[in-house]
Amino acid sequence: MATKTAESTERLEELGEDILEDIKKGKNPTFSTLVRSRSNIIFDQKEGYLKLGKTKEERSFLNYSQSKRFMQTVAIASKCHKFVKENLHTTIRGLFYQLKYSLGEDIDENIFSEQSESNPLIEDLEVALELKRENLNLNANRKGVLAGNMKVMDTFGNERLEIDCSKQGRSGWAIPSDVDNDIDFVDVKAKYVLVVEKDALWQRLNEDGLWKKENFILITPQGQAARGTRRIIRKLANMGLPVYVFTDSDAWGWYIYWTIKTGSINLAYIGKDVATPEAKFIGVTMSDLDKYDFLNKMTINASEVDLKRAQEMLNYSWINKSPEWVVELERMIKSKKKLEQDALQGPRLTFVDDYIKDKIKRKDFLP
Amino acid sequence: MATKTAESTERLEELGEDILEDIKKGKNPTFSTLVRSRSNIIFDQKEGYLKLGKTKEERSFLNYSQSKRFMQTVAIASKCHKFVKENLHTTIRGLFYQLKYSLGEDIDENIFSEQSESNPLIEDLEVALELKRENLNLNANRKGVLAGNMKVMDTFGNERLEIDCSKQGRSGWAIPSDVDNDIDFVDVKAKYVLVVEKDALWQRLNEDGLWKKENFILITPQGQAARGTRRIIRKLANMGLPVYVFTDSDAWGWYIYWTIKTGSINLAYIGKDVATPEAKFIGVTMSDLDKYDFLNKMTINASEVDLKRAQEMLNYSWINKSPEWVVELERMIKSKKKLEQDALQGPRLTFVDDYIKDKIKRKDFLP
Repeated sequence: MATKTAESTERLEELGEDILEDIKKGKNPTFSTLVRSRSNIIFDQKEGYLKLGKTKEERSFLNYSQSKRFMQTVAIASKCHKFVKENLHTTIRGLFYQLKYSLGEDIDENIFSEQSESNPLIEDLEVALELKRENLNLNANRKGVLAGNMKVMDTFGNERLEIDCSKQGRSGWAIPSDVDNDIDFVDVKAKYVLVVEKDALWQRLNEDGLWKKENFILITPQGQAARGTRRIIRKLANMGLPVYVFTDSDAWGWYIYWTIKTGSINLAYIGKDVATPEAKFIGVTMSDLDKYDFLNKMTINASEVDLKRAQEMLNYSWINKSPEWVVELERMIKSKKKLEQDALQGPRLTFVDDYIKDKIKRKDFLP
Repeated sequence: MATKTAESTERLEELGEDILEDIKKGKNPTFSTLVRSRSNIIFDQKEGYLKLGKTKEERSFLNYSQSKRFMQTVAIASKCHKFVKENLHTTIRGLFYQLKYSLGEDIDENIFSEQSESNPLIEDLEVALELKRENLNLNANRKGVLAGNMKVMDTFGNERLEIDCSKQGRSGWAIPSDVDNDIDFVDVKAKYVLVVEKDALWQRLNEDGLWKKENFILITPQGQAARGTRRIIRKLANMGLPVYVFTDSDAWGWYIYWTIKTGSINLAYIGKDVATPEAKFIGVTMSDLDKYDFLNKMTINASEVDLKRAQEMLNYSWINKSPEWVVELERMIKSKKKLEQDALQGPRLTFVDDYIKDKIKRKDFLP
């Protein structure tokens, strides 16, 4: 706790001191961050994730078009400084209301009229200070569940709690917003991480105790992965565990996979911390149709969105450089069919267990 | 476990035996259930929840327009029978794929072409057999988190697990799909249940340890409550705990409250089991604007949806019979303003704690 607080406080205070110094010297105070628009988002070929380029953006106080945003950014920094000092967390919505309140009841003017104004400035701060939102005590939405042979050492008030992720029954351990501060992961005794798109499949595999029999860590992001879930996958990969992702073979499923693997446009500014380029795609694949005969009966129609997205993905350099992915995408576009992970429950509910074991054994993954 | 399996199996087998008997006797097999359309949904004034009326629907095999649906219903019953026997769970999507598979690879005809066809027939079965989906081993979507002084005795494989809901740290206990079978709630030592609409507020209050200091059970449905969450609120109310619901003062928040309290049109067929008519509304209310001055600065514009919904709610007999609710709804319609629960974090992050304590102390609830 002490480390994070000290670091965040220090950087926020430095920001304030720099501004103060400029004012004292009669200089125009400036705030500098990196541009986060598409023009400055690049795919790092070597590292394998989306990140920001080097284009800077400067905002100065004595500039008619920048003055308001400068003031707003400082107001946000000041609130975050308070939250960190108090050791209390809120959300970007809570921050919005604090700023709404802070001008007092007599002033009929708001620092922000909409939260859509404050959100990008929080991201500006994260980039400028090289601190994640979680270090500014701003919780992000959380989603995602985990089961497996590992323990969580969490902090609750003054208590240190041990949560055994192998003893959470049908529920699993709910992945929190912040998996970095005042929390540790110990006794990680699994062989790999399996991330399944849908909570329904997580429950199916959890009931079969597959993660226990095969000794892996079973995670579901419950759809698109939240920051906390992306971050814990990254952390588990850092511990040397291979990561396999299991989604539907359709636009949404592929998007979930590539977001885990390469990060996303929206979070490119913290790309390194949330992307897991080592991740591999275990299924379901269109080429499974050749390996498991019955699946040909289990396809459903691809939607317009699926087909459009598949075409778009063929344009991404990091996807079309892989012949396997080109085959996958083209097969959907040609057949206008898609395949869901639930389809593997067709022959019997536990067939999906054998499918996973078989794929892992044969190392049958897409890159 | 044994009880549920025996009961579900018995009722499913009875259904099959009745059909078989009819066939043997040369009679036309029939399946009888209750109509679930709006015309047969009534609000039980005395009990305080939405339920089905007595209008029956009969489906017979030897009827051109009913024959396919009859066959489909029997196919679903047969699959559920198998799931219960195997003691394995799936979802209504998994069931759809099992039925897609079951005609074999050679027959170019599906029992169902869309899941939207099979879903209502599952509900027909639930009603006809007086069994909830959970007893047919069909998991529903889950959502919702809980913290407080109580323990869960869960079953995982052959293991019996104790999960202490006061020791789940920042995560809380994830409320599962099924809170009835092979699971028990023990050592419930809290004084009441507080249900807060948003996970963000749950995290805020959890961080403050408010449930611990005030000894209540803190639940968030994370928006609209899933079946499992509604069901556990009902079960806690059965144990004698008062239930207070805390949402935004807007269309969506009110909808969440009334769904918890009276049940919903969609789940009217299991109304008794998922509604908690004893629930009271703790806030935020439009009348809070008179009690907490600063809140007048914290309102935001009501949307068209909010205003339309407020007008609709004024037409519901179970809402407009309450003068307090009429005042609330009319105040929003007149002022075109609404209030979010997050606004209570305006003055300081912990203000919301005092708000809750104050409301509870003064018993300041809406019915």
